[in-house]
Amino acid sequence: MQIDIQFVPSPPNPHLLSNRIVVVIDVLRATSVMIHALSQGALEIIPVATVEKAFHMAKVFPRDSVLLGGERKSEKIPEFDLGNSPREYIAEKVKGKRLILTTTNGTKAFHVVSSGREILVGSFFNIGVTAQRCLELNRDLLIFPSGDEGNFSLEDTICGGMLIELIMEKGGKRMALTDASHCAQILYQRFKANILDAFHLSHHGKELMNRGFGEDLVYCAQIDITDIVPIFKKGVIK
Amino acid sequence: MQIDIQFVPSPPNPHLLSNRIVVVIDVLRATSVMIHALSQGALEIIPVATVEKAFHMAKVFPRDSVLLGGERKSEKIPEFDLGNSPREYIAEKVKGKRLILTTTNGTKAFHVVSSGREILVGSFFNIGVTAQRCLELNRDLLIFPSGDEGNFSLEDTICGGMLIELIMEKGGKRMALTDASHCAQILYQRFKANILDAFHLSHHGKELMNRGFGEDLVYCAQIDITDIVPIFKKGVIK
Repeated sequence: MQIDIQFVPSPPNPHLLSNRIVVVIDVLRATSVMIHALSQGALEIIPVATVEKAFHMAKVFPRDSVLLGGERKSEKIPEFDLGNSPREYIAEKVKGKRLILTTTNGTKAFHVVSSGREILVGSFFNIGVTAQRCLELNRDLLIFPSGDEGNFSLEDTICGGMLIELIMEKGGKRMALTDASHCAQILYQRFKANILDAFHLSHHGKELMNRGFGEDLVYCAQIDITDIVPIFKKGVIK
Repeated sequence: MQIDIQFVPSPPNPHLLSNRIVVVIDVLRATSVMIHALSQGALEIIPVATVEKAFHMAKVFPRDSVLLGGERKSEKIPEFDLGNSPREYIAEKVKGKRLILTTTNGTKAFHVVSSGREILVGSFFNIGVTAQRCLELNRDLLIFPSGDEGNFSLEDTICGGMLIELIMEKGGKRMALTDASHCAQILYQRFKANILDAFHLSHHGKELMNRGFGEDLVYCAQIDITDIVPIFKKGVIK
């Protein structure tokens, strides 16, 4: 079982993807939102690339069955129901609802890796159970950090590094790591005692702090608060 | 002064490059060869992308003024004068000669970043003086590891991380690091006590060991053995 991690969210070779598990990670904050919402009883999540598509998609379903969520420049989108803070996605609001989500990095990533054999949704919230699921599936793995507007993202890579560390602890010598995977694992080891330090150092973490979303950083640094591993299939995350 | 490092050797935006210093790094082994050869008195180096171009270029100059060097699959190319081990490039062979060099990763990288404002050649051999030169030039910097057949390279990134560490030690708070630069610096800090450990862990390092080039790894891990910083300009490295 080979474990690779792609540092920049450009489209991978579809041929390479077709036989791999892909884990999409956008810690701050899209995949944290998705996992949180589903753990709070949301029916399903439809990630879309643009605001226009979100409005268009919302019309397909009865209005009161759907919530529109996401961000542009970290802020809630006008006329949307919810922003991009996981803390907003609580049972009182999301239970039984279908969420249509559009964010700057995370929701796009799913469409970029859509040819993956199995596409899982990961963040610190579900990292332990995601590692367990990867070991059960027992196939080559591509970890796909969603990045920061096309650039390398420190926080997503550290989360990927934690996934690698957990898989290595159990899978041991069966696993082959690429240079990028070694790098991510070392990066995680540097910050494992305090994930929040990494968020404060990262470009996107600083940006969220400057915009008043400091509490989201604290919230998204929580580890293993749920045991669900959402799957992206045919355009829908469940 | 912003310091960025690009983890995958795809062409950067030329607009972004035109005002930046670029440092190309291929520790194992192309930039180590270049720096070593020039420090031993080679006249200049012409990096070319293909074996065909190397033979073609050699015909432009008097035959005894030129040496052909490089590798494919780590091995010396048939009918070439020299392979890709820095240890071959000694004064007795290279002094006063023009070298035409073609390698799998390193020589291509120079053509990819050719729109950079100033393009420097770095490796562990000249890392201290390269850091000093970057500080003197005092412009935004893009470190460009040549990669491992298009993939992330551990050893090149660690060398880039050392460059960042040295610049930060002197430049301090004037420097703005991207997430990728933070990552490279942390990676270097992990291996600073033993660079050779990183070579042994890396994919390309292992490949060189398997092909019998283990001594090159030891040789290329030497730090600050010369005070020259070659420059790539109009297709030529001097």
